[in-house]
Amino acid sequence: PPGRKVLIVYAHQEPKSLNGSLKRIAVEELSKQGCSVTVSDLYAMQFEPRATRNDIVGCLHNSEEFNYGAETREAYKRGCLSNDLIEEQKKVQEADLLIFQFPLYWFSMPAIMKGWMDRVLVQGFAHEFPNCYDSGLLKNKLALFSFTTGGSKEMYAKGGISGDIRYLLWPMQHGIMHFCGVKVLAPHICFAPEYVSEEKRKEMLIAWAQRLKTLWKEEPINCSPEWYFK
Amino acid sequence: PPGRKVLIVYAHQEPKSLNGSLKRIAVEELSKQGCSVTVSDLYAMQFEPRATRNDIVGCLHNSEEFNYGAETREAYKRGCLSNDLIEEQKKVQEADLLIFQFPLYWFSMPAIMKGWMDRVLVQGFAHEFPNCYDSGLLKNKLALFSFTTGGSKEMYAKGGISGDIRYLLWPMQHGIMHFCGVKVLAPHICFAPEYVSEEKRKEMLIAWAQRLKTLWKEEPINCSPEWYFK
Repeated sequence: PPGRKVLIVYAHQEPKSLNGSLKRIAVEELSKQGCSVTVSDLYAMQFEPRATRNDIVGCLHNSEEFNYGAETREAYKRGCLSNDLIEEQKKVQEADLLIFQFPLYWFSMPAIMKGWMDRVLVQGFAHEFPNCYDSGLLKNKLALFSFTTGGSKEMYAKGGISGDIRYLLWPMQHGIMHFCGVKVLAPHICFAPEYVSEEKRKEMLIAWAQRLKTLWKEEPINCSPEWYFK
Repeated sequence: PPGRKVLIVYAHQEPKSLNGSLKRIAVEELSKQGCSVTVSDLYAMQFEPRATRNDIVGCLHNSEEFNYGAETREAYKRGCLSNDLIEEQKKVQEADLLIFQFPLYWFSMPAIMKGWMDRVLVQGFAHEFPNCYDSGLLKNKLALFSFTTGGSKEMYAKGGISGDIRYLLWPMQHGIMHFCGVKVLAPHICFAPEYVSEEKRKEMLIAWAQRLKTLWKEEPINCSPEWYFK
């Protein structure tokens, strides 16, 4: 709906890839609805995935023994995080919906996107004990993981060699998003696009565009062990 | 036992941290046993986590549409991977045991270590369909995930707010190591070292040293959904 803000965090090296097309379709469809859409194109930004001392501008709270979590929490409070992190946090703060678009690498997101999670979702900004899970600091936001796989749907079935695809969603959806209070929409998964016909790939794009048309009417999943492991 | 080779992939910024001590103890204890121990100290190496075109030296197989998986597979065959990857692959190839030592970040490994997985475990080197899982190309090797957590043992219990700690081990142990044919030893977990006494932290170090003394007698876990989700 008009006025809603969406941040797409996108991690693919190639604009011509299916991930690139899925990202473009989301920008187009959501813009058409009147949403304001921002994209963090991580490879194009050469986004830094490493959590280091460089994330804190100026003096450390304790320079004797570097503790990344403690230092970034302090730096966030004092406004001393590095600029790239402040920029990303602004985008997150403004967004009603976060879409993560990526190819599945090793049952998870690519390192460049994991680095975005590690560095952007700082304590004090995204969570602050006891404000985690349902009372996480990013509550009232939605997230959606949209990704492509190498393995087929059969491999990722319950009883399949790679196990139910939901098993691998636990760390990303529950461990990260739910922990920060973000409600999670059902994932959008394109299985094995490299091994299907051009026509099938087109159908995948159409299905995503279709889903986006009614996305704002969707209810979040019940993000608890039952959803993942039954 | 004398002659066994161990690679420790280590991801912590601070040598004085508990992770730093756990790494040092592993080097000392395993060396004392006559093992030959190599450490990849990822932050000290400024290891690159991003999967990009720079990982291929010289021409691409298909420069029209960059496909990281396909390009690194080809580059591996032709010996055209970047030097940092060739170095890490040599260390993996020689190792009987891989130990991953890290602080848990967001229910997973830090991005710098995820980047090591994404970039080093190239198709053709670590797996090559149908040579995956029990017939993965790194079979006859062992792996052990040794990590510290922010959350307590109670939070990571079955029924706890963060769910059974085993849930989050699935992508790392099954999705990465088992996929490559590596057998997995039980994880070594130090819960919430930041919130316990100095004495408790010392006990954690002693427990790790003790475990290492009989490590080579351990049987791998049965890496199947039952172990993780019961």
